[in-house]
Amino acid sequence: MAAKKATRDRLVETARILFWEQGYADTGITQILQAADAGSGSLYYFFPTKEDLIKAVLQWYQQNLDSIVVQPVFERVRDPIERIFGILDGYRRQLEATRFERGCPVGNLALELGNKHPAVRRLVADNFKAWCKVMEGCLADAGHRLPASVKHEQLALFVLTTMEGAVMLARALRSIDPYDFAITQLREYFERLLRDGTQWSRPSGRSAKPRRARRARRK
Amino acid sequence: MAAKKATRDRLVETARILFWEQGYADTGITQILQAADAGSGSLYYFFPTKEDLIKAVLQWYQQNLDSIVVQPVFERVRDPIERIFGILDGYRRQLEATRFERGCPVGNLALELGNKHPAVRRLVADNFKAWCKVMEGCLADAGHRLPASVKHEQLALFVLTTMEGAVMLARALRSIDPYDFAITQLREYFERLLRDGTQWSRPSGRSAKPRRARRARRK
Repeated sequence: MAAKKATRDRLVETARILFWEQGYADTGITQILQAADAGSGSLYYFFPTKEDLIKAVLQWYQQNLDSIVVQPVFERVRDPIERIFGILDGYRRQLEATRFERGCPVGNLALELGNKHPAVRRLVADNFKAWCKVMEGCLADAGHRLPASVKHEQLALFVLTTMEGAVMLARALRSIDPYDFAITQLREYFERLLRDGTQWSRPSGRSAKPRRARRARRK
Repeated sequence: MAAKKATRDRLVETARILFWEQGYADTGITQILQAADAGSGSLYYFFPTKEDLIKAVLQWYQQNLDSIVVQPVFERVRDPIERIFGILDGYRRQLEATRFERGCPVGNLALELGNKHPAVRRLVADNFKAWCKVMEGCLADAGHRLPASVKHEQLALFVLTTMEGAVMLARALRSIDPYDFAITQLREYFERLLRDGTQWSRPSGRSAKPRRARRARRK
């Protein structure tokens, strides 16, 4: 039973890395078997089709989102806004560590397989939704510092579109600049939101009067 | 000479549509020849390799950016900020018209071919840069309305990362919501920038005093 699970895990892990490095279409079953040191019998036992394997990989990403992406940042950083930017920094490190060869594995699969494999697309969507939920949680924790008009669901998704777009651009231009530019602009937006949400001071130096004082004056 | 050009154009146009619909890897040369009603001799005359064909497609996108993406919006809309959102609306229409089957053709190729074909990646990067230049032009035209601290190059790129990320998410979730959410948030950011850049009034109702008046008062 344990040996079976180990074989299955090894197949998923090997496929995960190869799909990430080479894409889904360019990764052959034979290559996965060789790299995982597994026989075709055990592969077909666990994963009758290549699609079953990519589905298992996407389930792996969702199951490990917390331990791999979220917790390493949450353990170091307490401020909920900085947690968002800490997670974004993780993708930056990955771009640099892989010299722009590997981006977001889920984003890659979204564009490669979205149209052809509806079941895969749904698992990609589940991964995106889970990622957004983490961001929504951070925004909820920082909610009192943001303007009440801010829709957390929208803003969480905007953080994800920024990350995915910025990873795509950094890879295409083989430069970290596009990533840094996009995150800097996102940071500017957050700073403006926080400024608007903070009613007792104006870090910009403008309109330094607190709202309560203005209200009192009107009376 | 004209007939040769017509054949070449037909091959590029056919390949462009098929690559967009199916991706590069899943489009075979035979299919392109059949759809373009062309012989293999003429294909290999113009494009000795499949990579030569995708390079011609990417050159086509860059050459036609102005006539297909930019001018249809610029002719209808004069306000430079609204031109930016008008161009973004074009991608929204495309997502809806193709029922999320087709996103940004350049973004797709960026993720599919970025690592494997350096020459293709460079042409993808050129397309992204040309798109950003259009946005930078709009920002320059609106420059007097934006805070002086805004870096047009960064903000232009942020518009592109938002579009690419939002297209990816809309396709993965088979919903226009992610696209609309991201563009709404980008609009919120622009509105805050315009508010900060507008020194003679405060649309938010805060700090209604014009800067000149404040300065005069200090004297």
